Amino acid sequence: MAQRLIFTNDVNRELATIVERRHPSSVFLLTDENTHRMVRPLVDLAATDIIIPAGDEHKNIDSLQQVWRALQQGGATRQSLLINLGGGVVTDLGGLAAATFKRGMRFVNVPTTLLGAVDAAVGGKTGINFGGLKNEIGAFAEATDVVISTCFFSTLPTTELKSGFAEMLKHGLLTGSDEFDRLLHFDLDQLSPGQLLDRLQASVLVKQRIVEQDPHEQGLRRALNLGHTVGHAFESHALTCGHPVPHGYAVAWGLVTECVLSHMMMRFPSSTLQQLATFVRRHYGIFSITCDDYDTLLTLMRHDKKSRQGEINCTLLAACGDVRIDVTVTPDDMRTALDIYRDLMGI
Amino acid sequence: MAQRLIFTNDVNRELATIVERRHPSSVFLLTDENTHRMVRPLVDLAATDIIIPAGDEHKNIDSLQQVWRALQQGGATRQSLLINLGGGVVTDLGGLAAATFKRGMRFVNVPTTLLGAVDAAVGGKTGINFGGLKNEIGAFAEATDVVISTCFFSTLPTTELKSGFAEMLKHGLLTGSDEFDRLLHFDLDQLSPGQLLDRLQASVLVKQRIVEQDPHEQGLRRALNLGHTVGHAFESHALTCGHPVPHGYAVAWGLVTECVLSHMMMRFPSSTLQQLATFVRRHYGIFSITCDDYDTLLTLMRHDKKSRQGEINCTLLAACGDVRIDVTVTPDDMRTALDIYRDLMGI
Repeated sequence: MAQRLIFTNDVNRELATIVERRHPSSVFLLTDENTHRMVRPLVDLAATDIIIPAGDEHKNIDSLQQVWRALQQGGATRQSLLINLGGGVVTDLGGLAAATFKRGMRFVNVPTTLLGAVDAAVGGKTGINFGGLKNEIGAFAEATDVVISTCFFSTLPTTELKSGFAEMLKHGLLTGSDEFDRLLHFDLDQLSPGQLLDRLQASVLVKQRIVEQDPHEQGLRRALNLGHTVGHAFESHALTCGHPVPHGYAVAWGLVTECVLSHMMMRFPSSTLQQLATFVRRHYGIFSITCDDYDTLLTLMRHDKKSRQGEINCTLLAACGDVRIDVTVTPDDMRTALDIYRDLMGI
Repeated sequence: MAQRLIFTNDVNRELATIVERRHPSSVFLLTDENTHRMVRPLVDLAATDIIIPAGDEHKNIDSLQQVWRALQQGGATRQSLLINLGGGVVTDLGGLAAATFKRGMRFVNVPTTLLGAVDAAVGGKTGINFGGLKNEIGAFAEATDVVISTCFFSTLPTTELKSGFAEMLKHGLLTGSDEFDRLLHFDLDQLSPGQLLDRLQASVLVKQRIVEQDPHEQGLRRALNLGHTVGHAFESHALTCGHPVPHGYAVAWGLVTECVLSHMMMRFPSSTLQQLATFVRRHYGIFSITCDDYDTLLTLMRHDKKSRQGEINCTLLAACGDVRIDVTVTPDDMRTALDIYRDLMGI
């Protein structure tokens, strides 16, 4: 059964329709402490509430067991429905809890952050962190419905909105220059939830189209990895150094570096690269690295979940919308790309 | 990709072929303490060994985390292979560990018990016990290959062989009277592994055909539930009373009771019912219940994983091979069936 995507500004009406349509034997609603306080009061739905601690550090086996236990104690069956109301932690963990409870109950995602809406809530990847590695344990399991609205975003900090927007930039680059241009001209300092819904819809549908063609990440889906081989390395390195950066910011800097590689290796247009670098520098600032960080970064890239046999593996672009997956990048080329990244950022 | 079933008496050769064919980045081999001691020495395969404690009481989240951790520490990737060498606990738990490690790595099942071969190892149901309920947490995930051999069975206690044979009786009833007759005339007191392999192959293929048509237990697969609504209730009741019975024995008694219901409700032939009852009584003995146990048993049946809205749900037979799934049984009919079961067993 295909995942239904619903773009709306009337979440309550859509949830009522879903419950009527799926006629579950019972309804459970998962939030974290933050979304329970900020968002749950806005949602008019009778359900058994399950509340987990907020933050990526709680996206773990303890919280997962807490959700399983609450479902069990609440008498959930395979015909029940779990509604995940929150950011990526809630939809990833809630999705895994539902996918494994009695070998699978249905769930609905209602992302409350831009990053969640554009990335985690759609596409069937669920998971928790384990043994210090992100999303080490998980399953591919699609929500029956994903209700996407910008109405919850008004209280989000700018950092969070920009994080989500970085994934939208990625989707724009994967689609074509028209959509990418529209995003570059979007006023990121004056994000209005109403205007955002159109662009968000376009962006989510890019991801949906790719996922439909490759649900279990055997090939094409790795297109969505654009910016992430370098981005994850930046993110992990920053975390290790005690100066964590938001995921989306790391992706933005990763996109710049991987577009440099795309230019070096497949003639990705330098004008587009320049536009991207200028936009990222203005809105996301600079992730400052020196040559001394290169070895560490390269080691992190070799340990990426998608790498094989210790090679560095990237998704690159010959042009906007012209995607090449599984490109092996030599350490020398990566070092050169990091040099050029630093030039572009003025480091 | 369909699950490959391999019936053989040369497990080592088949495993070597599988490893060559799947060319994994690394190989892990899961056993429990018993199969590590008894069976592992017979298997000639270079692999990183993972050993969990033996017994259903260890089919839990702690052992699951132990396997995840060993895979992580051993550098397992999505291209690695986990070989589950053991009974139902090892194949169920190992399957779930593999299905969720990095959102899914491949695994091979090598059942070392008859019950494991005929039931747990084939069909994609993985799971662990949680919160006091059996298989409460799990996933549908198929082994790429299942290597089935009777060569490990020679050291099994008779109780275990009879447990497995009860599931074969079930498959016989689901297929047709010819196969059922062949099983009734099998010399259960002189089980020879060689003769057994033919009947086992027939039996496993019955399950395989059903599972292929309904991998996620939406309908037809519930045929395999024959004998289990009552059997599970007997098993749970015995456990609560401090006199646990083997799963397969509970299934054998459950088959008798559900064939009684089949006779009452759909004219299942009384001669076949008599044959079954005689066979079960002779080889499995009697599960002794009184009228005072009926209420408890009915409550347990209403809480079965497959029940809906608190009704008692059974798979019944109009004849051998003529299956009716999702039959609602009234409490009165169930009480009558339990009365007749007691008569047949001479209680």
